[in-house]
Amino acid sequence: MDSKQIAFYREEALRKVLNKMMSQALDSAIVTDLAVIRWLTGFSGSSARLLITREKSWLFTDFRYREQAAEEVVVAETVIAGDGFAAELGSGRYPLGETVALQSDNVTWHEATRLIEQMVGKQRVIPVDSFFDEFRMVKNAIELMKMRRAAEISELAFETVLPMISPSVTELDIAAEISYQHKKLGAEKDSFDPIVAGGARSAMPHATPSTARFKSGELIVIDIGCVYEGYASDQTRTVALGHVSAEARKVYRIVQEAQALGIASARCGMSGKELDAHVRDFIAAHGYGDEFGHGLGHGVGLEVHEEPRISPKGECVLQENMLFTIEPGIYLPGKFGVRIEDTVVMGPLGATPLQRLGKELIEL
Amino acid sequence: MDSKQIAFYREEALRKVLNKMMSQALDSAIVTDLAVIRWLTGFSGSSARLLITREKSWLFTDFRYREQAAEEVVVAETVIAGDGFAAELGSGRYPLGETVALQSDNVTWHEATRLIEQMVGKQRVIPVDSFFDEFRMVKNAIELMKMRRAAEISELAFETVLPMISPSVTELDIAAEISYQHKKLGAEKDSFDPIVAGGARSAMPHATPSTARFKSGELIVIDIGCVYEGYASDQTRTVALGHVSAEARKVYRIVQEAQALGIASARCGMSGKELDAHVRDFIAAHGYGDEFGHGLGHGVGLEVHEEPRISPKGECVLQENMLFTIEPGIYLPGKFGVRIEDTVVMGPLGATPLQRLGKELIEL
Repeated sequence: MDSKQIAFYREEALRKVLNKMMSQALDSAIVTDLAVIRWLTGFSGSSARLLITREKSWLFTDFRYREQAAEEVVVAETVIAGDGFAAELGSGRYPLGETVALQSDNVTWHEATRLIEQMVGKQRVIPVDSFFDEFRMVKNAIELMKMRRAAEISELAFETVLPMISPSVTELDIAAEISYQHKKLGAEKDSFDPIVAGGARSAMPHATPSTARFKSGELIVIDIGCVYEGYASDQTRTVALGHVSAEARKVYRIVQEAQALGIASARCGMSGKELDAHVRDFIAAHGYGDEFGHGLGHGVGLEVHEEPRISPKGECVLQENMLFTIEPGIYLPGKFGVRIEDTVVMGPLGATPLQRLGKELIEL
Repeated sequence: MDSKQIAFYREEALRKVLNKMMSQALDSAIVTDLAVIRWLTGFSGSSARLLITREKSWLFTDFRYREQAAEEVVVAETVIAGDGFAAELGSGRYPLGETVALQSDNVTWHEATRLIEQMVGKQRVIPVDSFFDEFRMVKNAIELMKMRRAAEISELAFETVLPMISPSVTELDIAAEISYQHKKLGAEKDSFDPIVAGGARSAMPHATPSTARFKSGELIVIDIGCVYEGYASDQTRTVALGHVSAEARKVYRIVQEAQALGIASARCGMSGKELDAHVRDFIAAHGYGDEFGHGLGHGVGLEVHEEPRISPKGECVLQENMLFTIEPGIYLPGKFGVRIEDTVVMGPLGATPLQRLGKELIEL
């Protein structure tokens, strides 16, 4: 894609934000969330604040990112803030207006207090929560393209490591190989530390890879993702090393059917919790309701966990061009766990997985 | 080390925290910072809150970490908080006392507001800032051992990739190889994304590895670290591919001398800013004061950037068993950059680098 198209989408995003600000009588907004800053301006550094005013926007960062900001930032002017952002804000140089929105779900209590001190008697600070989510949840064509590429890279990485799994290697060996393949295939990095968990460890939904060697007859959960040009992928497959028990096969089949049901049931206009309940009821009807203790899925984008939540608390309504995971799991402590996950994109007729990997139980 | 020794240090840490709380008339404390939670309890999951009271401590996490918490947590009782931490706190089940400390430098403004709502009329919430830093900065024997191992792993990774650098490979290839070696050598993961930056890109202190191939005659900054049992390493070397310019050699020599000066000058009782000024003056005297735009160093431990700051703002006084980096750099935009970094441990007589890698300019 060319830089014109990127600038078009960034300007469109900023326009939406400004419209929402005006509709809520907010004259300016302070953005502390780096994912929101990247989404709006393109800046990918690890230290920044963004000030959006009705006239203009400014990105504040430090010396280390001088060149990077010059290369990356659009729709905002970069300021190298040697004395920090609070001091800049207190300088009176910026047209803050009367009401200033501040990301209460991201800024620390300490920084909020300091920023409010800078503005006492001049501006009123309004806490805003999840202010940008409604825009970020819906992906544009460039974002979708990047997420497709991220998903492809993780699929290739998975297929590359699969033949390496044997009783002579450890979970950490496979995790290392996955991260390596991600980068060799063009990803910036992992979107989270790979989960590679065999046997009883697969019953821990967020297991850390260990030096345990794989054993014949166990299930192995492999939950991985990478970042491509800022955008994350997220996928899980559970595979068997050799022949597994009848119970393991039965649970695998239920999770496989639950995951297929999740994909087939997603509709624009449905809330995240409705979709979650649909799959949860299915698993409960098979007697494993208590063993599915996490949400069905979550949005993916610049962050690997973002809105919309597809969980019992997910009020958000599914819309076209949202991307989120569908990842039911059943975990039997001390025995084994099974999880199958795709990242899907909502279209007008339903959800389509980015992943093309099969979901029949693979016996290595 | 055995579990008794670990429990001893954790109990000692908790005792110090409780003493500080009592001296400030704080009846209980809410900890939101995952690094502090890991330091105090051993819990390494990605979602937790810790409540410390004079009677007892509780760790709150979710279903996903049920088994992991049972394995890891000492000095606190684990609660799986299905309805979230604020609801638990509001239940009245916990002996909060009258004054409750809350980590204002870590908790979001939003969560602080919600927690305060739970306690209105019952407890007074006291914002505390950097409350645990003074304890966490000084490492115990187990922590030091882990950090030595993390440093060794990164040194080995660096030595392994060095012969691979040539005009036929890219920055990303080398970054991928470093991450892979980290894991193969026993690290959990990178402590930050490896910085591998050649030529003009080396002038960006926080460059992201690119698909650029190395060119003969350029300097390459390699800034890497890994995590071993929770603890981070951090090291930088700048190497030359083939023969580099006289200016590059001159700048390299100044940075090398500045770094040696930093190590030789560190003394217990000196503040971080005194040490920073010493090295900064040296670089300025050689005419490159404006090209050294970041602090001299930072503490390392469970986080790769923590207290003490060794920078113009570093008020903290250096003490025995603190670990921090010494990493001067000179960056000439559009041309090249040089940075050399060790992590040092403060002893009674001065600072000793964990790293044993040489610092003469290597020409590959």
